[in-house]
Amino acid sequence: MANSKFEYVKAFEQPDNLLPNTWIVVRVDGRGFTKLCAKYGLEKPNDKAALELMNAAARAVVTELPDITIAYGVSDEYSFVFHKNCLLFERRASKIVTTVTSTFTAYYIHNWSTYFPDKPLSAPLPSFDGRAVCYPSVDNLRDYLSWRQVDCHINNLYNTAFWTLIQQGGHDNNEAERLLAGTLAKDKNEILFSRFGINYNNEPEMFKKGSVVFRDYELVDPETHSSEIGADNTAQPVVQSKSQAEKDKKKRQKARVLVEHLDIIKDDFWLRRPWLLSNKPGKIRKET
Amino acid sequence: MANSKFEYVKAFEQPDNLLPNTWIVVRVDGRGFTKLCAKYGLEKPNDKAALELMNAAARAVVTELPDITIAYGVSDEYSFVFHKNCLLFERRASKIVTTVTSTFTAYYIHNWSTYFPDKPLSAPLPSFDGRAVCYPSVDNLRDYLSWRQVDCHINNLYNTAFWTLIQQGGHDNNEAERLLAGTLAKDKNEILFSRFGINYNNEPEMFKKGSVVFRDYELVDPETHSSEIGADNTAQPVVQSKSQAEKDKKKRQKARVLVEHLDIIKDDFWLRRPWLLSNKPGKIRKET
Amino acid sequence: MANSKFEYVKAFEQPDNLLPNTWIVVRVDGRGFTKLCAKYGLEKPNDKAALELMNAAARAVVTELPDITIAYGVSDEYSFVFHKNCLLFERRASKIVTTVTSTFTAYYIHNWSTYFPDKPLSAPLPSFDGRAVCYPSVDNLRDYLSWRQVDCHINNLYNTAFWTLIQQGGHDNNEAERLLAGTLAKDKNEILFSRFGINYNNEPEMFKKGSVVFRDYELVDPETHSSEIGADNTAQPVVQSKSQAEKDKKKRQKARVLVEHLDIIKDDFWLRRPWLLSNKPGKIRKET
Amino acid sequence: MANSKFEYVKAFEQPDNLLPNTWIVVRVDGRGFTKLCAKYGLEKPNDKAALELMNAAARAVVTELPDITIAYGVSDEYSFVFHKNCLLFERRASKIVTTVTSTFTAYYIHNWSTYFPDKPLSAPLPSFDGRAVCYPSVDNLRDYLSWRQVDCHINNLYNTAFWTLIQQGGHDNNEAERLLAGTLAKDKNEILFSRFGINYNNEPEMFKKGSVVFRDYELVDPETHSSEIGADNTAQPVVQSKSQAEKDKKKRQKARVLVEHLDIIKDDFWLRRPWLLSNKPGKIRKET
Repeated sequence: MANSKFEYVKAFEQPDNLLPNTWIVVRVDGRGFTKLCAKYGLEKPNDKAALELMNAAARAVVTELPDITIAYGVSDEYSFVFHKNCLLFERRASKIVTTVTSTFTAYYIHNWSTYFPDKPLSAPLPSFDGRAVCYPSVDNLRDYLSWRQVDCHINNLYNTAFWTLIQQGGHDNNEAERLLAGTLAKDKNEILFSRFGINYNNEPEMFKKGSVVFRDYELVDPETHSSEIGADNTAQPVVQSKSQAEKDKKKRQKARVLVEHLDIIKDDFWLRRPWLLSNKPGKIRKET
Repeated sequence: MANSKFEYVKAFEQPDNLLPNTWIVVRVDGRGFTKLCAKYGLEKPNDKAALELMNAAARAVVTELPDITIAYGVSDEYSFVFHKNCLLFERRASKIVTTVTSTFTAYYIHNWSTYFPDKPLSAPLPSFDGRAVCYPSVDNLRDYLSWRQVDCHINNLYNTAFWTLIQQGGHDNNEAERLLAGTLAKDKNEILFSRFGINYNNEPEMFKKGSVVFRDYELVDPETHSSEIGADNTAQPVVQSKSQAEKDKKKRQKARVLVEHLDIIKDDFWLRRPWLLSNKPGKIRKET
Repeated sequence: MANSKFEYVKAFEQPDNLLPNTWIVVRVDGRGFTKLCAKYGLEKPNDKAALELMNAAARAVVTELPDITIAYGVSDEYSFVFHKNCLLFERRASKIVTTVTSTFTAYYIHNWSTYFPDKPLSAPLPSFDGRAVCYPSVDNLRDYLSWRQVDCHINNLYNTAFWTLIQQGGHDNNEAERLLAGTLAKDKNEILFSRFGINYNNEPEMFKKGSVVFRDYELVDPETHSSEIGADNTAQPVVQSKSQAEKDKKKRQKARVLVEHLDIIKDDFWLRRPWLLSNKPGKIRKET
Repeated sequence: MANSKFEYVKAFEQPDNLLPNTWIVVRVDGRGFTKLCAKYGLEKPNDKAALELMNAAARAVVTELPDITIAYGVSDEYSFVFHKNCLLFERRASKIVTTVTSTFTAYYIHNWSTYFPDKPLSAPLPSFDGRAVCYPSVDNLRDYLSWRQVDCHINNLYNTAFWTLIQQGGHDNNEAERLLAGTLAKDKNEILFSRFGINYNNEPEMFKKGSVVFRDYELVDPETHSSEIGADNTAQPVVQSKSQAEKDKKKRQKARVLVEHLDIIKDDFWLRRPWLLSNKPGKIRKET
């Protein structure tokens, strides 16, 4: 049977390939998570189980998509970074962004009962939206990640102060808001410490720094290595020999995908993990 | 704390609003579903439970997103149609396509155990990719849907013949392929009937026609109504009065979301359901 | 010599094909024409020669690009309409928009001395920018053209009153501005008539209505023809037989390209010239 | 008079801002210049006057648009490079590409009679199309320019051999083509030298290398300067102080815009002219 009469409609699909040689960041965001927090009675300002569920989903995404070099999550959002040389799906934006968002959603839903055994899911289910953004330089990429981590810090300090004023100080929302209006970081630290004896520095790292997901290899000593950050400035995607590609693939599969809570703004994090920007797998860590 | 130093990276997000006054079709496709079928031992050529799980997920998507006027599914793909006047998310492509794909995935994963109680999910989990395409005219839109339904018919007839040759005829894959090479529809019907006593017309409608999902209102008699297909040719999104919008919303919520297996190529389907193209809810059916 | 080492840079060119089955409007705008008017001492509020030069350039563009069905110009801007079925340059946006803008510029510069024999051009030369916009329906397209013609009317009435107050009323710019602030159309008409004896209706049509450029065929009587505006709602570009395409091409070449000053907002203009929207050439007019 | 009824059509204009922090190359190409060469009897394989007219137009474009840091032309094409930090027209693609193409066309037409006093222009006039491409890194940008210059070399060597075989060797087109089929560069050099006594190296630089257009400042000694190519890797457009911006502007206006015929593939060209990639004007040359 001839299908050709209708097939012309395929011509309406418009190409959306992302500019080559740019870092691709896919950010997924929880849809209506304020409502979701209320519905399932999640803890304020941070629900440990909810964050760990996000991290588990992100870890699964990074594991399934080896083109992702690093991911960073805070609150109900997660950013996934594809290396600038990545050619996955011919860099088609909608294919990349939906694959990440769908895979993330799948693990989030599937793992929910592990993290919330007493809170069965019901419709409307949690879901996520996503977008892809291109960053031309390593500096732009790191500034993006720094932006998200600074945001994490600012929001978490505010929320910690806000909810402490309510939960321990007995204030209502309006009062808490008014008490914090116009305050600087040190003022909020001071309120927490002097009124409630809370040293913000002792709060859990996951709350203060968010979560970083990446493949783990042997750390590099920045002193003894002349590693320049993002030194792999190949203008053109390197076509690897087949055997080299196979080796890299195996190394990536052997590498553990970690979830940590580190400062990713300072150079140190990147200098010690050159594989994150070079796209060359590092040395597999010996088990200890 | 000043966040502004890094905030410039927001400027790299590029707008992706879809052209106004065009029908938006979001199609989601199962990723690597051939492997998935093998892994969970799904039936060939059609697994009824798998299709019903797809339909359940699609039904949930249509229920949650009232901007969707109709959806059509076949095999491991589903197409969702947003009315040309739809302004959801300011018509941002990535927001629309990820919301649909993520919501679909969420229900697919969540409902899996209902349809496959004996086949627990394990990593890698099922996931979907998606894309959005704009169609300027009602004819283009209907041709798109016809294209998918013709595809369903062609593929299902072929697959039915192919798997019958294997499962009942004792042929192997290569033989079955060779026997069907170059055959027309009537030849495949003849093979099924003369060799296996199978009348293709008696196959389940869901297999032959795919599945249509839409809100149910009282059908209209095309004879007595001067309904012209897609007659609502408003050039500009109509700004409704608030009370009218509220009324429409309530009607949509009251309407049942149906999953049926109908011919959507012929005019009759559309003439009897003018609300699908007009974006005005019909008359709520009286319960019987 | 191997060129391949550098050729990879071609991959950075991104496709920009415009959505099929939509009307393409390319609008060119004079760059810095306020300065240009001052530099060459053009007349206010309308310089007849300058407008006729614009029209001559537009006429040449329409003549050279038969895919253009109609053009409309006012002040230092011109809009060119390509039929929704047009496949010129595979509908690549930058190719279409630069071809129109460059051709327009070429004729504008070349013909300058014909219209301004006493004002030789000098650097910086006049130039134009351009953009392409897609309109899905005939209604959207006509609303676009109506928008430009209403704009022409509003601006010309204001400018006529403004410059009459200055040139004949002896007011300075600020006074003229103040006198017109908040006035309605009828107030401006009244000022022109009672203070200066000017009946705005008697102003030249070119100033009041702008200029329309199109191929001329025999007009159609809307009474005796059941012509429906934009009735040619073919969903898909019609592939013509070669001989039919040749016939159409010859007809188009024979047709005179007219510049007129007509109302293009009302239906009448379109009903009498069905070829503008149908993309089928009309009947060649007999010379009289 | 209310214009609002039609104004909604503005919403159909879609943003087309180019990715920040990328080099923008606008390439203009002559439309149908093979025909044009025949029509005006231009010399083969290179018409000096025609190339000089291209260069004059390019020089005018660079002079009028100080955001252009360098331009490169060969045959009937010219590439204009905007610095990655350039914010002209908010980096809107169609605005940038049409402005360059229109300005180029204006000067080409206007200056035609200077270069071809005996060949008056007639319709259809010469025109150009254009496109904009983004390159994320200095390496990509330089590879783009190298691509064009290598192309110039390959084509010019071939064309020189081809037309010498015809003009001096008495061969027809087919014979010349056959004689050159499969030859390497050294074979073509040998044919030119042994049969016609032509040393290709002595051909005019403009034919062999194409033309480079840029602002002239004092050259820098790569030995004594630690200038690293493209060292100005600012991630973010630097917001200059007003007085600094004024100073830069004046320097740019004082700088002469040169047309030269140099090797732009090797590092030397760039090392001696750091202002081309740094976007900081150099030291104004003392007149000699």
